[in-house]
Amino acid sequence: MTKRSSQQASDNLLSRRRILTGAAAGAAAAATLSAPAIAQGGRELKMVTAWPPNFPGLGSAATRVAQRISDMTDGQLTIKVYAAGELVGALETFDAVSTGAADMYHAADYYFQGKNPGFNFFTSVPFGLNAAEFNAWIYHGGGQALWDELSGQFGIKAMPCANSGVQMGGWFNKEINTLEDFKGLKMRMPGLGGEVLRRLGANVLTLAGSDIFPALQNGTIDATEWVGPWNDLAFGFHRAAKFYYWPGFHEPGACLSLGINRSVWDSLSNRERAIINSAAQAEDSFTLAEFNAQNANALKALLNEHGVQLRKMPDDVMREIGRISGEVVREAGQTDDLTRRIYDSFMSFRSNVMGYMEISEEGYAAARRLGFAY
Amino acid sequence: MTKRSSQQASDNLLSRRRILTGAAAGAAAAATLSAPAIAQGGRELKMVTAWPPNFPGLGSAATRVAQRISDMTDGQLTIKVYAAGELVGALETFDAVSTGAADMYHAADYYFQGKNPGFNFFTSVPFGLNAAEFNAWIYHGGGQALWDELSGQFGIKAMPCANSGVQMGGWFNKEINTLEDFKGLKMRMPGLGGEVLRRLGANVLTLAGSDIFPALQNGTIDATEWVGPWNDLAFGFHRAAKFYYWPGFHEPGACLSLGINRSVWDSLSNRERAIINSAAQAEDSFTLAEFNAQNANALKALLNEHGVQLRKMPDDVMREIGRISGEVVREAGQTDDLTRRIYDSFMSFRSNVMGYMEISEEGYAAARRLGFAY
Repeated sequence: MTKRSSQQASDNLLSRRRILTGAAAGAAAAATLSAPAIAQGGRELKMVTAWPPNFPGLGSAATRVAQRISDMTDGQLTIKVYAAGELVGALETFDAVSTGAADMYHAADYYFQGKNPGFNFFTSVPFGLNAAEFNAWIYHGGGQALWDELSGQFGIKAMPCANSGVQMGGWFNKEINTLEDFKGLKMRMPGLGGEVLRRLGANVLTLAGSDIFPALQNGTIDATEWVGPWNDLAFGFHRAAKFYYWPGFHEPGACLSLGINRSVWDSLSNRERAIINSAAQAEDSFTLAEFNAQNANALKALLNEHGVQLRKMPDDVMREIGRISGEVVREAGQTDDLTRRIYDSFMSFRSNVMGYMEISEEGYAAARRLGFAY
Repeated sequence: MTKRSSQQASDNLLSRRRILTGAAAGAAAAATLSAPAIAQGGRELKMVTAWPPNFPGLGSAATRVAQRISDMTDGQLTIKVYAAGELVGALETFDAVSTGAADMYHAADYYFQGKNPGFNFFTSVPFGLNAAEFNAWIYHGGGQALWDELSGQFGIKAMPCANSGVQMGGWFNKEINTLEDFKGLKMRMPGLGGEVLRRLGANVLTLAGSDIFPALQNGTIDATEWVGPWNDLAFGFHRAAKFYYWPGFHEPGACLSLGINRSVWDSLSNRERAIINSAAQAEDSFTLAEFNAQNANALKALLNEHGVQLRKMPDDVMREIGRISGEVVREAGQTDDLTRRIYDSFMSFRSNVMGYMEISEEGYAAARRLGFAY
């Protein structure tokens, strides 16, 4: 997935270092933006998002959670949603909310790993938790308390508010048979997943969404990942690459978050906080369901109408990617005491839940394929 | 799982035929119960549930969704929750809400398959959808509209409001190596799953939760299923049976539902309906996460502290169970035009989503086991 999927996002990316090393951008924005409006007995909060206008799935989630909150308060609390670039760029959303220039963001917390690599664990890490496991960790495994501690350092209260499920391995112009095939491969993949491929010898690029298709078509890149069949079909990658690889390893259950300025959060009534909590949890589940339903339809269309060739990444390749992922994720979890506690909690939960998933969800899915007759 | 997990529930079961063939019980209850209270500017609704008092997981979900609704309305709309037997028995909840004797229920809709076998599809059917797939069908695959049509025939509006995830295969006093081992096996399993085992030659019994342990201990039964490690550990089945089998096939993602009297639903404001909708969706996700986290911990305890012997059901056995499940589920979907449409929608969605799950969640889970090194 990229979350920087517009030219605006691309521009932000170029200036990422500056943005992530200080609150300058946010402070500047604060000077030009009004305080939260309180009008006609109601209150309007500003939500900045990391998504282009009308971006299906993640953008819709932001719009829908705002609608839920408005509906549940009879319009007494409304959320004005801004696409990336309308108030601040995709990667500036964190600083905007941290400084109070905006009231809340809808984004992926791993965009903010420059603040602290621990933020990776609150979106998705290579060979980490899937969507169901992530929610189990956050809601019932100590994850939320650690997230509160990390985001609290920046004056933000964050919570899950959408999940894409496991993402696809990506589009390739040549087949991958051995680890050697990654050497020199020009592939677009952001984040920790990209770092894993870099250690395999790939030439890893980070491109904004709108730049991927032409780059794939003109040979600037040989391969790219994006999200899954639903979003990938819309971008038309099947017209520029032959092979669609599964499974993805880099984002096995990407959580998108609602981050709220802590002073704004504290200023809300208990009722309003309860509404935002349930709205975000509900939207998290609703969006994951949408991805699963839409991805299933889109995959069928890609295979039956567009002649896409599915390929499974060889086991030997995945085994080595798993080993390197372990290194990369471990390094991301060693920055400071809090990051180490996040890493330890995440990994301990992962170990426990994998023991259970093997004999439940995974065992069931395998058995269902044996008896698929009906 | 049994949902009749108290003596009260057991008593209800004995009189099930009478209950399910008429609204007599509900009508009788209506005569003795007051109309929904509207006091001090607030309104109190009565929720009858199919759960014993303080039943972990499913009972907690009912209590928590009531709390969410109260919190989100500052106590203007409150829900009084009744355990099974306090107002009506577990299996009488449907009639109580249908007739207006109670305002809403929290139960499993397949308890009401005597009304129409189509209700099975809105809880779980053998080798059917897992929890994530079920939500995708309900929210984005046409499932909710069909559910509205079916429940609407009884004056009820129902929606998902908890999910247990895939349930375990159960506890056995002898090993299962071939299909022959099911012949004459005395096993406790309710519903369509029980019918599948019956066709394998098993002697299938339906026992209330509280009756299972003594029956297993004294040899009245050789085997039983219940829910999963969390609830199973609490019942102490490991002290009465040697082998814990996986995976379960009979309830791969049991949805528990909130059913609301249609007139009550229509009398609520848009704000109140929005609150109930998000509260139920949020609780659905929150409870599934709780089952996954708690099951993971309980499985570890069963294996490490109680010496439980895990056994995988042989592939040949599961293949035949799959074939028979297909027959049983098909038969459940042929009652009338609506049931056929529910069956067709469910099966068509199942086929689509399984195509996607194979290359996403399932493919990822398998690859993660190869590279588990970290």
